[in-house]
Amino acid sequence: MLSSQSSDVQKERVVILGSGWAGYAFARTLDPAKYERVIISPRSYFVFTPLLASTSVGTLEFRTIIEPIRRLPGKIGFYQGWADDIDFDHKTIRIEANAAEEAASKTVVPAPATPPSDPGVADPKAMTAQGESAKKGDLIHIPYDKLVIACGAYSQTFSIEGVREHAHFLRDIGDARRIRLRILSLFEQCSYPQGSDHLTDADKRQLLHFAIVGGGPTGIEFAAELHDLIREDLAPLYPHLMPLVSITVFDVAQKVLPMFDQALAKYAMDTFARQNIQVKTEHHLERLRLVDGELGRRHGALRIKIKEHGDEEVGAGMVVWSTGLMANPLIAKLAAKQLASPGPNPPADASAARSLLRDPRTGGIMTDAHLRARTSTIQPANEASPHPKARGILEDVYVIGDCAVMENEPSLPKTAQVASQQAAHLARRLNAGGAGAVAGKAFRYRNWGTLTYLGGWKAIHQSEVDALRGWVAWVVWRGAYLTKSMSVRNKILVPIYWMISWLFGRGISRF
Amino acid sequence: MLSSQSSDVQKERVVILGSGWAGYAFARTLDPAKYERVIISPRSYFVFTPLLASTSVGTLEFRTIIEPIRRLPGKIGFYQGWADDIDFDHKTIRIEANAAEEAASKTVVPAPATPPSDPGVADPKAMTAQGESAKKGDLIHIPYDKLVIACGAYSQTFSIEGVREHAHFLRDIGDARRIRLRILSLFEQCSYPQGSDHLTDADKRQLLHFAIVGGGPTGIEFAAELHDLIREDLAPLYPHLMPLVSITVFDVAQKVLPMFDQALAKYAMDTFARQNIQVKTEHHLERLRLVDGELGRRHGALRIKIKEHGDEEVGAGMVVWSTGLMANPLIAKLAAKQLASPGPNPPADASAARSLLRDPRTGGIMTDAHLRARTSTIQPANEASPHPKARGILEDVYVIGDCAVMENEPSLPKTAQVASQQAAHLARRLNAGGAGAVAGKAFRYRNWGTLTYLGGWKAIHQSEVDALRGWVAWVVWRGAYLTKSMSVRNKILVPIYWMISWLFGRGISRF
Repeated sequence: MLSSQSSDVQKERVVILGSGWAGYAFARTLDPAKYERVIISPRSYFVFTPLLASTSVGTLEFRTIIEPIRRLPGKIGFYQGWADDIDFDHKTIRIEANAAEEAASKTVVPAPATPPSDPGVADPKAMTAQGESAKKGDLIHIPYDKLVIACGAYSQTFSIEGVREHAHFLRDIGDARRIRLRILSLFEQCSYPQGSDHLTDADKRQLLHFAIVGGGPTGIEFAAELHDLIREDLAPLYPHLMPLVSITVFDVAQKVLPMFDQALAKYAMDTFARQNIQVKTEHHLERLRLVDGELGRRHGALRIKIKEHGDEEVGAGMVVWSTGLMANPLIAKLAAKQLASPGPNPPADASAARSLLRDPRTGGIMTDAHLRARTSTIQPANEASPHPKARGILEDVYVIGDCAVMENEPSLPKTAQVASQQAAHLARRLNAGGAGAVAGKAFRYRNWGTLTYLGGWKAIHQSEVDALRGWVAWVVWRGAYLTKSMSVRNKILVPIYWMISWLFGRGISRF
Repeated sequence: MLSSQSSDVQKERVVILGSGWAGYAFARTLDPAKYERVIISPRSYFVFTPLLASTSVGTLEFRTIIEPIRRLPGKIGFYQGWADDIDFDHKTIRIEANAAEEAASKTVVPAPATPPSDPGVADPKAMTAQGESAKKGDLIHIPYDKLVIACGAYSQTFSIEGVREHAHFLRDIGDARRIRLRILSLFEQCSYPQGSDHLTDADKRQLLHFAIVGGGPTGIEFAAELHDLIREDLAPLYPHLMPLVSITVFDVAQKVLPMFDQALAKYAMDTFARQNIQVKTEHHLERLRLVDGELGRRHGALRIKIKEHGDEEVGAGMVVWSTGLMANPLIAKLAAKQLASPGPNPPADASAARSLLRDPRTGGIMTDAHLRARTSTIQPANEASPHPKARGILEDVYVIGDCAVMENEPSLPKTAQVASQQAAHLARRLNAGGAGAVAGKAFRYRNWGTLTYLGGWKAIHQSEVDALRGWVAWVVWRGAYLTKSMSVRNKILVPIYWMISWLFGRGISRF
């Protein structure tokens, strides 16, 4: 903000790219009395993703699971838009501003990269083309003293035909809204009576088939929430349609919920079996397309081609895609840059050309145990060097969350837990005394375990210390999460909505 | 619904066109034990319009002011779509089904009628062209025993250039949502700092000018709510933008709020003056257009041409249109039909050709004092006629709400009060004993007075018996309305949101 700039001249400006679990948690923990906080993000809020599936079926109101960035306690600067490029030498970020209506409340899925040399990384140009607003936004430049890269990862479609165009994703609040509209609209469309020009029961059976691709916690939870919505709220309103409804979860792996032990995974599958949710493992989706003719044009019916089924396609009214992540195109762009100087005050052999170091497997940026960005060429150790910290790291640039790969723990999962723990660690170190303090203590990941909701108030929770199942797991861990990451406003509203939905049913109106 | 059809064979089917104040209140009051209720409406819910402005500024959550039709107590049939045509002789309604995502949550503004012979009435074709979903819906046919026409009226643009394309309307929940997105987006767009490619303060002054056209309660209330949002929620977040913000209400009349007495109207104007809301009476809007170049293309800046200002246009970031209603195109279509027989068992002179009688001034359907549709040719009074009620009325067809004009009280205002009172009266008479009971007791309008919110917890209320002002008026009358027309769910949620918004501020995230 113009005003904040003027009054914070003496403070170091920390610019944060992203407002997800990493970026928001960092901004929340960083002390505004010690630093000027500036967030750059395409969305103006943080989404509490564990409850996203609940909002997509109307158990919760959308706004109860998002936290507006501008409402963070203490002074906060915010620019809505995409970080378009970074000049590390002059410590400046170029932003493509985008404050258009509904900008970026929908998951952006980049086109596959043009150079095959760069596996699983999106093509920035193709991505901007896919951006929310057709019109390109203003370009603005923001200087920083310290930079925290927390811009996350994109959904991975594995270049499967039709997925970008026809599948629903479930990563942002706008996605949840579209999914909810689609579900309710499908039931409405199938509720019309017999008539000259109407849907046959076979058509309706296709439209009321809900396919979920990806058997991780997100996909499983969505299937469970969807089942609750249909059984508890839609069955009384559309009784004659119930025989035509079906839910299927597809996964390429041998088992779903890989992070759970046998007993819990079996418990999940038994629960699903009782709920008539089909789980089809070792199924490979090859293509997604709109049905030809009226059924596709008017009602948006889809056809799923599955390798194991040969040419015979599966019909569906909606396909929810919840599998795989790909590196953010910005990362590829940044890693390609040559860094002129290793730091503010260059040591002797500054000539050594270097660039950001990327993890060849995931395409993320490598960091040291302190979440500092690694550079590709390590300078020779030199006791005389006045800048030991300059060795192989890019000063004042930190990377956290899905776009970071820690060299000491390279296989940390891309989860909210990892992101928020990294964020809190880095912010606390900076509060404790800047770059020096950061170098003082390495990051350690504490696994609180994984919670997955299975429908009918049942859930499973797995960690090193416990293996909970049933409603206890649900209450304990949802509650824990909630109190941990939400504002007072939402701590009040979420339980109220749980009660309201339980008493009076979920919201079922489309608008 | 298929199921309900089978089980209700013995009951008379009452088909209701529309789910606004008239249609919803009627369906709510009609006894499902005595009649099979079937609602046909483009939207799947009833909107509590007095709180629409509150949702458009985030004081309330959208879903708290809508009631899903399918959640009406007792069995209810519902088909989402537009009544496309009615065959009165065979008692069948043709519906253009439309259950597409977000169908009709946005105000549809028909193009002006092609035949100038038909003043102020929209052209059905032009309207369908303007319909929400490009794809035409299935056509389905629904038979009725009794028909209640409650399809309301459309927004009147007086064929002013650019209004349909660029103005925001405020009649449905989708409108409120779009308005909220636009307001917040405008502040976000103006919050970017100085830069090579950025908005000047002059540009921002234009974008942050909010113009409201129409000085009736709706326009005035929106201006007031917008002022509250800006002063209480946006000022702390965008302090540097406040000097650039302005709100103007334009009206063609000499004074706004014509239904209020001098003292209350003056109180309203004084309140607005203190809030720096400009009220410009006797101003005629002549054209609305997008600014040329980036400012228009990228930021959607508008230019308003006003007769009194000559060629010099007024800039604005948003124009909210809340003035005038025009007859529903369906009415014109129905009135044009020749009715073959006057009733189920035709009297002697059945040959007498007739059609629905329309009010030449407003284009609505004339009804008698019992809300029965009037026909154009009255048959000669004939004591021997076995069907006295067949004289000049169309049997089993009733008209209520904005599309009805009562011959005994032709100048009733087009308000929620009139609509809901007519609805309740008709439903109670039918409950009391069908067509006979309807003829027994004429409708009388009771004016509960008009409430208008002025911002800062102040309101004014005017009726024959009182002239209230200040917060008392607000509490008493909002409360009264609320308890009268809402479900338990929303009776709980609305006060909770009032409290939450008051404690923690309004919802300010865009998605």
